[in-house]
Amino acid sequence: MAYEPRHMKWWGWGDVDKGFHSEAHPGFWPYAKTQLGIEGDAPHTQPVPLEAVQLPEATINSRFLAELRSALHAGQICDSRLDRVVHAYGKGFRDLFRLRRGSAEGAPDVVLYPENENDVVLILRAAARHDVMVIPFGGGSNIAGCLERMENQRMAASLDMRRMRRVLAVDEESFIARVEAGAFGPDLEEQLNAHGMTLGHFPDSFLHSTLGGWIATRSAGMQSDKYGKIEDMVVSLRMVTPDGVLATRTVPKSSNGIDVNHMCIGSEGTLGVITEATMRVHPRPERRIVPAFLFPEFEGGIEAMRECTRRECMPSMVRLNDPDKTALSLAFKPPSSRLSQAVSNVLKRYLRAKGFDLPRACLALTAFEGRKKDVARQLREVSAIYRRFGAVGLGTGSGKSFEATKYDFPHIRDFLLEHDVTTDVSETSTVWSNLFPLYRATMDVIRSRVTESGVQPWSGCHISHTYRSGASVYFTFGFRQQVGREMEQYLRVKRAAQQAFIDNGATLSHHHAVGTEHLPWLAADISPLGVRAVAAIKHGLDPGNIMNPGRLQPSAEPFEEWYRIGSHLNADAKVKVAHSSQSEK
Amino acid sequence: MAYEPRHMKWWGWGDVDKGFHSEAHPGFWPYAKTQLGIEGDAPHTQPVPLEAVQLPEATINSRFLAELRSALHAGQICDSRLDRVVHAYGKGFRDLFRLRRGSAEGAPDVVLYPENENDVVLILRAAARHDVMVIPFGGGSNIAGCLERMENQRMAASLDMRRMRRVLAVDEESFIARVEAGAFGPDLEEQLNAHGMTLGHFPDSFLHSTLGGWIATRSAGMQSDKYGKIEDMVVSLRMVTPDGVLATRTVPKSSNGIDVNHMCIGSEGTLGVITEATMRVHPRPERRIVPAFLFPEFEGGIEAMRECTRRECMPSMVRLNDPDKTALSLAFKPPSSRLSQAVSNVLKRYLRAKGFDLPRACLALTAFEGRKKDVARQLREVSAIYRRFGAVGLGTGSGKSFEATKYDFPHIRDFLLEHDVTTDVSETSTVWSNLFPLYRATMDVIRSRVTESGVQPWSGCHISHTYRSGASVYFTFGFRQQVGREMEQYLRVKRAAQQAFIDNGATLSHHHAVGTEHLPWLAADISPLGVRAVAAIKHGLDPGNIMNPGRLQPSAEPFEEWYRIGSHLNADAKVKVAHSSQSEK
Repeated sequence: MAYEPRHMKWWGWGDVDKGFHSEAHPGFWPYAKTQLGIEGDAPHTQPVPLEAVQLPEATINSRFLAELRSALHAGQICDSRLDRVVHAYGKGFRDLFRLRRGSAEGAPDVVLYPENENDVVLILRAAARHDVMVIPFGGGSNIAGCLERMENQRMAASLDMRRMRRVLAVDEESFIARVEAGAFGPDLEEQLNAHGMTLGHFPDSFLHSTLGGWIATRSAGMQSDKYGKIEDMVVSLRMVTPDGVLATRTVPKSSNGIDVNHMCIGSEGTLGVITEATMRVHPRPERRIVPAFLFPEFEGGIEAMRECTRRECMPSMVRLNDPDKTALSLAFKPPSSRLSQAVSNVLKRYLRAKGFDLPRACLALTAFEGRKKDVARQLREVSAIYRRFGAVGLGTGSGKSFEATKYDFPHIRDFLLEHDVTTDVSETSTVWSNLFPLYRATMDVIRSRVTESGVQPWSGCHISHTYRSGASVYFTFGFRQQVGREMEQYLRVKRAAQQAFIDNGATLSHHHAVGTEHLPWLAADISPLGVRAVAAIKHGLDPGNIMNPGRLQPSAEPFEEWYRIGSHLNADAKVKVAHSSQSEK
Repeated sequence: MAYEPRHMKWWGWGDVDKGFHSEAHPGFWPYAKTQLGIEGDAPHTQPVPLEAVQLPEATINSRFLAELRSALHAGQICDSRLDRVVHAYGKGFRDLFRLRRGSAEGAPDVVLYPENENDVVLILRAAARHDVMVIPFGGGSNIAGCLERMENQRMAASLDMRRMRRVLAVDEESFIARVEAGAFGPDLEEQLNAHGMTLGHFPDSFLHSTLGGWIATRSAGMQSDKYGKIEDMVVSLRMVTPDGVLATRTVPKSSNGIDVNHMCIGSEGTLGVITEATMRVHPRPERRIVPAFLFPEFEGGIEAMRECTRRECMPSMVRLNDPDKTALSLAFKPPSSRLSQAVSNVLKRYLRAKGFDLPRACLALTAFEGRKKDVARQLREVSAIYRRFGAVGLGTGSGKSFEATKYDFPHIRDFLLEHDVTTDVSETSTVWSNLFPLYRATMDVIRSRVTESGVQPWSGCHISHTYRSGASVYFTFGFRQQVGREMEQYLRVKRAAQQAFIDNGATLSHHHAVGTEHLPWLAADISPLGVRAVAAIKHGLDPGNIMNPGRLQPSAEPFEEWYRIGSHLNADAKVKVAHSSQSEK
């Protein structure tokens, strides 16, 4: 842990030397071009150089800075161009589109790097005293718009936790570990693995997100089916507020009134900075396998997943792609993938002989981990259930390929943005009885809205994160950009998808947080009195409203603010957006 | 469901025609007398007659009552002596001692019986308008002091939910059920069983407590090892506040900011009235067995339980008694119990031959339920683990006897109170690594404090509600009363036990709530900023402070209020209590 993890590339996902290379996935771009109606050579729009990025004029609070300089060392207070740009946004479509076009309106004025809890206490006290906004920053991987500053009147400090990432203690008898909140996924697992333990939390953003970020946004890892969401893993935590440290006790369960852990979990930086948490951990599994299966159609696959939860033989991960996501997955496979070869040859004939209508087939990756004998038993039980719904086992090749590339998917968006293709996601959860209707309604509305903008829609869905009562439903969509109306086009689709969730009994997000992107639906989701309760805690712990202002507090006209974000890049389109937003009401 | 469940007897536990009969448990009273140092005939103090109970002078708000009378029918507004006395308290030692002695200082002025959510809305609006306190009342089984009025300046209404106890909908596909909050345990299970379902929540108070009460106090059922605590079962809920209905969405999991469900869960009536909840339910188990085991000593039993959680072969219930609780259990067995016969004869010899030192032996009841083959597998695995720690299987006789009498234990206290013996409980939870040290420290301090009052202590403990990280630790204590100093004597012991929890890293309660009884330790448990956060929600949702005032909000000197409760009965002792409270600081 001598190194300090690098920041992600300021204009896209992941390490600067990593990205999506179409030669490694030769099937992908031809598939995408066909789906999106791109003929011939696609455009090739590079991000502007860093020097050309427009930063907001810095709002400087000299007394705040003077106080910090007397308490921290110089390397903890950074205002370089790169620091400011890197901390301007997360990695949502609006974030990346703006940065690539050279706009960093959301950038903070200074970036602070605390090295221990006391640094955080000092910073928040000084910020409260001098009315400076503080935006806690973990890995910067959020795609719901949790990180940009929402006003310029006050100085804004991004508080980057990456220097606090030690596992402080492991209680091997009680299967708990006390961890600093700035620990990135790999940090955390490396240190826990040394004790024979794992947290079991592996979100898509694993390489570039932190424990504190996961807790503040109610993250879910790929194996939440077995290990739970992050909120199920927290035993206790410490959160620095502008007025001192809130701390809960390290006990398995309590009946001590309203659960204070759950006020901090999901607080999205609006109450304070989570500095450490004691987490439930697990022995590293003896065995792990990820077999793939193909279902004849989506509904049967959903039924099979539900049946697994009903019979309590839950794998550690289930990921069922709909037909479109299945086609995308196959197109994405590296050329050496056994599956892609097999599917294209013998397997296809076999499947047709079994009555499969291949364009309707759905790929399901299913992971099992734990004690060897439990894994064997679960695999047997799950395979039997899957077979009842017509599934065919495809072996573990596809799973191995998934394991090797599972953290690489976000790179695809950068590649597509370079070719003027907008992609993003909307995800939710619902109960089993509502899952297929929700799926149909949302897919329909996404495709209609894209089509209305005059281009071909691509959308796909996967079901994952299963529970006895339901599952997460994750939509990915993409389309060619309307030049000069990119934001409007995106917002029409995004709004429709989110509204479909709310209209169909689902939630605004299963694990991506509220941020700015989903804020207009918060009151519908948790009811106006729920919003009021959240506002009340905020007012109680942060009366000066210095912590990540604007989050979790929808205004009376939440869509106005929502449309404003990034709209300066599509000035022409703004009027039309405002118009269409009215007609949709 | 045509009947309306009867109120419990006003001066004790359970139905009026039920109680503890020593002839049915002939070993119990001789055991208790020996343990408590009672020689010859014990005193026999009956409760005063109902007519002799002193009620506080009613504080009447005529405009409030007039408004209610225009909206509700006459049978929903009750101010009979019995209604007021029954709703004065829960069933803690202080509650019952006061009632038996004829003091009902905590009684409300009126009892209201809403029949649907709209009634609750009307009542709370009227109460807010006219500044009337509202104390939500489920079954009245709470033993932490959650129900008595804490002031007399304003009119107090007890809002009894027993007429709202329907299961409104069962979604068998998603394993969820929407239930009115006034449903008692038997109501709920009967209606769910008709759908082949169970909630799996069986607290000791099952017969006399309600879903809303469970949620408001973060209750745990005996089978929480398998089904979780009540907070793990809530999918969504509706809570009526003085300003309208707060409602959350029926989705498996979400990332919609701070979890509003968890603001209502554990709110102990301070924010509003929970009117319904959608709960996770489970198929009724195919099979259920409750074998008993005997461990040579307590520490080994704890280790064995921990090992079960580590290996994920968790029974649905584990209940390990320490040696004293084991002796009490054996003394409590009905005469026909096979176990008590066997233990006294062949088994004792067998156990001694196996190296058991019988006074140190510990009884463990372990329940398994679910699919037949899973039960068989779990029993095999758990038995193997137990054997490694020296346990001997005792068959299922003891478990059957436990099943038959599991809801009867609270009757014992009434019997003992009749004989001037004080008994109560303090329970907590802690992580495995701290469990035995906490046990020793708490047992020591309980016994010391009882001995200081000049009488023989009895105390025992059981471990239950296991989690991967730890378990609940449940202490029961009893002693002869010092005449005229009963309250002081109880408070010294209770305070010492609770302080031992906090001093030793545990929590103020695992499943009994904060109430008034545990309030002095709330700030130490959730930190002063946690208390402030709770106060902030309260202020946001109930600015008029009409909902169960005084709960969850410790004053600057919380012990002053704590000692005041019921102290009028021991006027002489009050000075001494105040004195000793200072010396303990």
